[in-house]
This record gives sequence, structure tokens and C-alpha cells, in this order.
Amino acid sequence: MPSYFRVLSLLEEENAEVVSSQELGKRLQMTPAQIRKDLSYFGKFGKQGKGYNVSKLLGELRQILGLDREWSVALIGVGRLGRALLDYGELTPRGFKIAAAFDIDPQQIGKKVGGVVIQDVAELANTVKNRGIDIGIVTAPPSQAQQVIDCLVECGIKAILSYAPLTARVPKDVRLREIDPVLALQAMTYHLKCLGSS
Amino acid sequence: MPSYFRVLSLLEEENAEVVSSQELGKRLQMTPAQIRKDLSYFGKFGKQGKGYNVSKLLGELRQILGLDREWSVALIGVGRLGRALLDYGELTPRGFKIAAAFDIDPQQIGKKVGGVVIQDVAELANTVKNRGIDIGIVTAPPSQAQQVIDCLVECGIKAILSYAPLTARVPKDVRLREIDPVLALQAMTYHLKCLGSS
Repeated sequence: MPSYFRVLSLLEEENAEVVSSQELGKRLQMTPAQIRKDLSYFGKFGKQGKGYNVSKLLGELRQILGLDREWSVALIGVGRLGRALLDYGELTPRGFKIAAAFDIDPQQIGKKVGGVVIQDVAELANTVKNRGIDIGIVTAPPSQAQQVIDCLVECGIKAILSYAPLTARVPKDVRLREIDPVLALQAMTYHLKCLGSS
Repeated sequence: MPSYFRVLSLLEEENAEVVSSQELGKRLQMTPAQIRKDLSYFGKFGKQGKGYNVSKLLGELRQILGLDREWSVALIGVGRLGRALLDYGELTPRGFKIAAAFDIDPQQIGKKVGGVVIQDVAELANTVKNRGIDIGIVTAPPSQAQQVIDCLVECGIKAILSYAPLTARVPKDVRLREIDPVLALQAMTYHLKCLGSS
């Protein structure tokens, strides 16, 4: 669904009013039949032969995905990757505002990056409570990642995006997503290997 | 499979000789039955009641995934994210060496980041050929990403990892993986929304 949302947002920017399942399929590298099946789960969005109304479908998806509001994010670990995310221009316009950033390095604490003042990680629990933080992004070093994740869970955070190259443990009611470029690369080498031996 | 590989590598570092499907399940947040089913596709790795031999399973997965060799990677777009990846210590030990980096900014070209001298993107085709580049990582701005991807495809690259927040188009024989933190965040807000309304 997030992929649909991304493509439809782009279509809206291009001032498209309607879009066919063929066009959606082309942009999402899926078959038109898959598109129609996926979207039928969420009610009758399209009319036979007329395509989908872009802004209506986008509005429905926004509601379904909980994107009709802004989500407050705390980032923990302000190294190069953390800084890249703090400076990344695509989060706020797409509904995710990094409202707080934390580190353990006294040299970093108090500095301002991407409009956010870096705080001592000891202030995490208070800040999560006072500023209504919804989501944690973990960009701490691998050796500290599980500890940071445990800390976010204790603070009541229910959604965590982790950049640490490890399968972290979280309670059942917490959603954890991981971004590990090596996993993405390894998922392609099987294909490369087959090409090489063919 | 890459997730299995990551967990097994960690177990090997911990000097574990055998591992049960229970333990693997715990670490991968899957049921032991799923683990046994997954691994049975790839032959008889485990003995009933004895668990899996860690180094043997790791060796087989290494071969299956094509990780018994080093892969050469070219990175295109040396902004903050590109620099973070060039400095990221987890790529080389896990089999992916960034052998070349490219940018269009004359201010960047010639500078050295993470042991790699940044080249003019005009040299991409030659470098891919001469240095046997296997994989491209695209960290160029969104507006230039599709053009960079087209360029990599023209150079014969068959595996691309893109950080651009768009669904890029590639020919059928090219594998494309995308890392977009917003998609990962949006995949969790549905869950948060449901928690909020319960």
C-alpha cells in the first residue's frame, strides 16, 4: 500500500485526474490484474473502463494508512547516517517530522542539525512523553542498537525503524522495520550469480 | 535467506557450533516450523533433534546466495547519504566493496571519502568496464535518480540498489531494490492508527 501511495502522490503532482490499472501497473512493475485485485480489497475505487480517480483514491489510502495526520519521530544516534536523515527533505512533506534527536556523545549534545537540537539520550523518556513522540528511528552503532530499542520500548514507543544490521528483539505489540543495505544487496547477488553461470 | 545468513554469521561469531530451529526462530521472530520448512528447500541441513551445524549451513547459504566471493560496487551521488555509505563499516566485511564513487559536482570530484576518490560521473561507463563493477548504489537526488539508473543499465549493470523515493523503471533482466525510509515508516502507521483508535 505505501508503494501505491507514493505513485499516486506523484500522479497528483503531475495533475493527473484519473489513472488506469495499466498505467499503475507500469509504474509499480505489476500486472493490471494484480493492481485491480489489490485495490478491490479496499472497496470500489475504480469504474470499469474509466480508471481510478487519483485524488479520491489517494484520500482513501491516506486514511487507511493513517497518513491524514503528522507523526512525530525521535532519532537516536547522530552519526553520519543520523545526520543524513535529519537533513533528508523527504520526511516532513510525507508526514513524518523528526521532532527530537539524541546521542550519548557530549561533543554532539546541544548542537543543531536539520533544525533539531541534539539532546542527551538520558532525556529520551521525558521527551517522548512531553512531545508525544510516536515513532523511533535507530541510527545508533550496532553494539548499542538493542539497548536503544529496549529503551524506546520502555518509553512506550510502538513503532521503530532500525538501521542496525541485526535482528532486534521487540515485544509482540511493537512494530519493527529494519533497513539494512547489505540484506538488500545480498537479495540480488543470487540473481547475479545465476547470470554469471548461464 | 539474507536474514538467515545474518543471524548465522552472528552465531558463528559467538562460536556456536549447532543451533536449533527454536533458537533460530527466536532470533528471526519466526516459528520453528517455518524455519524447518524454509531450510528444507535447500536440502538436508539439520538432523532431527540435533539442530543445524552453524558453519556448514553458513557455507551452503554463502554458496547459494553467491556470497563466496567479493562483489564490486559503484556508488553514484556523494551527498550526506552517499558519504554515510562510503564510511559504513559493514559493507566490506560482508562481501560488498565500494570500488568507485561518482558525482556531478566539480567541488566533490577528486576528493577522497572512505578510501575512494570521487570521480566524474562521465567516467562511469569506463570504470564499470575496467574495474568489473557488479552492482550500482544510487544515492543521487530524486530528480536525477532515473537518469542515473538508466545510465547504469546502459553500462551493463544488472543489480541496482536505489535510495531514491520513486519507483524506478528498469528492464526485466535487471534487479532493482529500493530503500525508502518513508515507505518503511508508512508501513507502520497503519498499526499505530489501529492502536490509537482501540
